[in-house]
Amino acid sequence: MTNQATIHPLDDAMALQAREPGVYTGRTTQAYWNMVGPFGGITAAAMLEAVLKHPQLLGDPISLTVNFAGAVTEGEFTIRANPVRTNRSTQHWMLTLEQAGPDGEMVVATTATAMTALRRETWGVSDVKMPVAPGPENFERAEPIFRAQWLSAYDMRPVSGNFPSVWDDSGDTSLSQLWVRDVPERPLDFVSLAAASDLFFPRIWLRRARRVPIGTVSITTYFHANREQLAQTGSGFLFAQASAQEFRNGFFDQTAQLWNADGLMLATSSQIVYYKE
Amino acid sequence: MTNQATIHPLDDAMALQAREPGVYTGRTTQAYWNMVGPFGGITAAAMLEAVLKHPQLLGDPISLTVNFAGAVTEGEFTIRANPVRTNRSTQHWMLTLEQAGPDGEMVVATTATAMTALRRETWGVSDVKMPVAPGPENFERAEPIFRAQWLSAYDMRPVSGNFPSVWDDSGDTSLSQLWVRDVPERPLDFVSLAAASDLFFPRIWLRRARRVPIGTVSITTYFHANREQLAQTGSGFLFAQASAQEFRNGFFDQTAQLWNADGLMLATSSQIVYYKE
Repeated sequence: MTNQATIHPLDDAMALQAREPGVYTGRTTQAYWNMVGPFGGITAAAMLEAVLKHPQLLGDPISLTVNFAGAVTEGEFTIRANPVRTNRSTQHWMLTLEQAGPDGEMVVATTATAMTALRRETWGVSDVKMPVAPGPENFERAEPIFRAQWLSAYDMRPVSGNFPSVWDDSGDTSLSQLWVRDVPERPLDFVSLAAASDLFFPRIWLRRARRVPIGTVSITTYFHANREQLAQTGSGFLFAQASAQEFRNGFFDQTAQLWNADGLMLATSSQIVYYKE
Repeated sequence: MTNQATIHPLDDAMALQAREPGVYTGRTTQAYWNMVGPFGGITAAAMLEAVLKHPQLLGDPISLTVNFAGAVTEGEFTIRANPVRTNRSTQHWMLTLEQAGPDGEMVVATTATAMTALRRETWGVSDVKMPVAPGPENFERAEPIFRAQWLSAYDMRPVSGNFPSVWDDSGDTSLSQLWVRDVPERPLDFVSLAAASDLFFPRIWLRRARRVPIGTVSITTYFHANREQLAQTGSGFLFAQASAQEFRNGFFDQTAQLWNADGLMLATSSQIVYYKE
């Protein structure tokens, strides 16, 4: 039993119970509820949490791909995390999230692959610098931009590419930039970074200034920060940026970058999203 | 038995034999051999071919993530393709590629997930235009840039960000652009596009003008073209572009775009690559 008075909503959503090694029971939570299911970012985070909880884990997350195969419904789910290949310094994972279907049979709602590794110090360089922007204290927290509980779990401060205020087909860009952190504040870790990689509103709503039905199909996140760099970031604001490359025949892609306030690239991410019309 | 005199080397590499539904036997080929294993792009293509060959296939490829979990060795391999979730218009796949290990036990060398879908006509727009560049006839085919058989399977015509001619740590960009097509010429399809998404030499070699050991860990490709658009592209040159975002502590990421000569975006791709030093 968890103490709802003191546990952070994100940690509450990450509460997985090991039934056997690699098999975990979790459940959806109201704090991260989207319109017809949980926020995709929180499902991605839960998949990663199953990897991080596994007794055979080697190293820290480097890459995570999560495929939203079907709706996750309210209630209990089972995550199976399988370390299919362990090398000297890298480890590869395959995962599923299942729920009981209408006839009681288990149905796969989400699939994932992940790679974890022991990192070592090497030469490095940033080829995509954080855009120059005034600090988060210069922007106001946005009101929840649509009716979804999970939006209240983030302090989002739009810098550019704001949520359209009118739906008049006047859009001309797919680029959004914002400052963002968890509400309540929470020190950044790999699961919260995985969740944050999915927090952008649909690029097509911005690009078209038109709200059409959408659903993320698959998201891939690459983690560039190690534990120490996440710890240094603490509960500070992240600078988050997303744009689309191509919208065609029912699917568009999005690329995203997340930096900490010191300009350190924490993660890069891409996703492909279904849209109607 | 295949007729080596007439079959294209790429189709030869895609020759999978169904042992049972969803279980296929293939083998590596010399034409796509890299330095210590097959070209990653051809392995990615073989995973996709297993999906396309599956009797339960729904629709065309939208996304493909391939994880290079361990070395693929010369000879036979087994691909298992499992359609874990089929919806009305989308289908989600999990795949593994296995080979017999030193003790005869089967070892997972590659994992993948894929999503296929029935596409429909919708609104669309391109937010990343093909760069303006002279046509392929204005550039010379590059000599194979390092000793790897697969390089001869492509006519690569560098436009910018060419393979360094000296290794003197003088690099200052990670962006490469080139015209490319299969050798011999071959009409573009989903598997050859999946392979082409991985044909860039390692960004770190360009960025540092230094050759360090590398290995792609995971590649994700989103397909924006449908069958008709691939057919229209035929065996013409593609304009291919890649750059890195972040190099740090042993891993860098790469984003890539592939257009046909008419400027139609065919695929966008991202990958994360291990590097030493």
